[in-house]
Amino acid sequence: MDTTRLAPQTGAGFVLRAGQSLTVVDPTGGQVSDFYCVLADDHDEWLSSGRTIDYANSTLVTTGTVLYSNRSTEMAVVVDDTCGRHDFLLTPCSQQTFDLLYPEFEGAYHPSCFENLATSMGPLGVDPDRIGTTLNIFMNVWAERDGELHIDPPTSVAGDRFVLEARADLVVGLTACSAEKSNGGVCKPIDYRIDG
Amino acid sequence: MDTTRLAPQTGAGFVLRAGQSLTVVDPTGGQVSDFYCVLADDHDEWLSSGRTIDYANSTLVTTGTVLYSNRSTEMAVVVDDTCGRHDFLLTPCSQQTFDLLYPEFEGAYHPSCFENLATSMGPLGVDPDRIGTTLNIFMNVWAERDGELHIDPPTSVAGDRFVLEARADLVVGLTACSAEKSNGGVCKPIDYRIDG
Repeated sequence: MDTTRLAPQTGAGFVLRAGQSLTVVDPTGGQVSDFYCVLADDHDEWLSSGRTIDYANSTLVTTGTVLYSNRSTEMAVVVDDTCGRHDFLLTPCSQQTFDLLYPEFEGAYHPSCFENLATSMGPLGVDPDRIGTTLNIFMNVWAERDGELHIDPPTSVAGDRFVLEARADLVVGLTACSAEKSNGGVCKPIDYRIDG
Repeated sequence: MDTTRLAPQTGAGFVLRAGQSLTVVDPTGGQVSDFYCVLADDHDEWLSSGRTIDYANSTLVTTGTVLYSNRSTEMAVVVDDTCGRHDFLLTPCSQQTFDLLYPEFEGAYHPSCFENLATSMGPLGVDPDRIGTTLNIFMNVWAERDGELHIDPPTSVAGDRFVLEARADLVVGLTACSAEKSNGGVCKPIDYRIDG
């Protein structure tokens, strides 16, 4: 397929078949893309950050990392990564993220990855309560030894790519992240392509 | 209620009502206890590690930390903590944990927190697929800046306690962790008590 561009603060949902690859590109640099998936034929089997980082013994995913489900099924494997920093600790941003962490918005409606994932995966039958901790592609998070989190601007530069190969049929949600603080202050687009 | 002792590598399930407190004590020192919960009247609302650490801006939970659900509801708050190091990144140990990370067991059956949570919460109506990343009380995990995880022996000493107060009616699962490497080589008991 051709490359699809996600406008800033939007998302998309689609089916990724076993063996197909998903290429996520940061076209401008410095932009996060949240990824989530469930098994296409059983939405009670979902992407598990806990199992993935446990089995990889790393909070970072990169080329070679297998993405596991809550039942320890191999859902996908990372086959290419030109950036090297992606977060798998934090929740997709949600209205509550902005309510709690962006007091400057005074509780006003704000687009969010959670809303965009729910809206995009909903027509494919995925209940919003099945959406857990996302793989936050290009998001630059690290923790001090005392636990304090640092959300730094992404290190991705224009054209950086992150490529997954599906190992099962998946329903996928993908966003161009809506949270200003995670994206160096400005929300930008994300490109993606499915091959195979 | 009186204190209940969980034998090594076992678990328990129970209802914790809003306002009640749960005290988890490490009676010998150096022992992890996995905690998970869902809302008592809607199991599709579950404990979210991603939202909790995001809103706390820390991977560590301690006195004052609010435990959030996937819908950003306040499920519980930590009201006392004499240890200070608890993990909220990793999955409960499961049969697959031992299959993948303990080659010395050669794939043989091994007790696990996931099995103990599923067995304990199951009679209270909780589907195993609702069990996500646990709060691993007394588990000593930290990550290098490059993502590498270190699972060190717990820093807890005999009598250390961790106390939660429920902010909603919860179905809780609690274990004495079954994974030798997380517990300084030997799996030991855990004590707990419900007050209020």
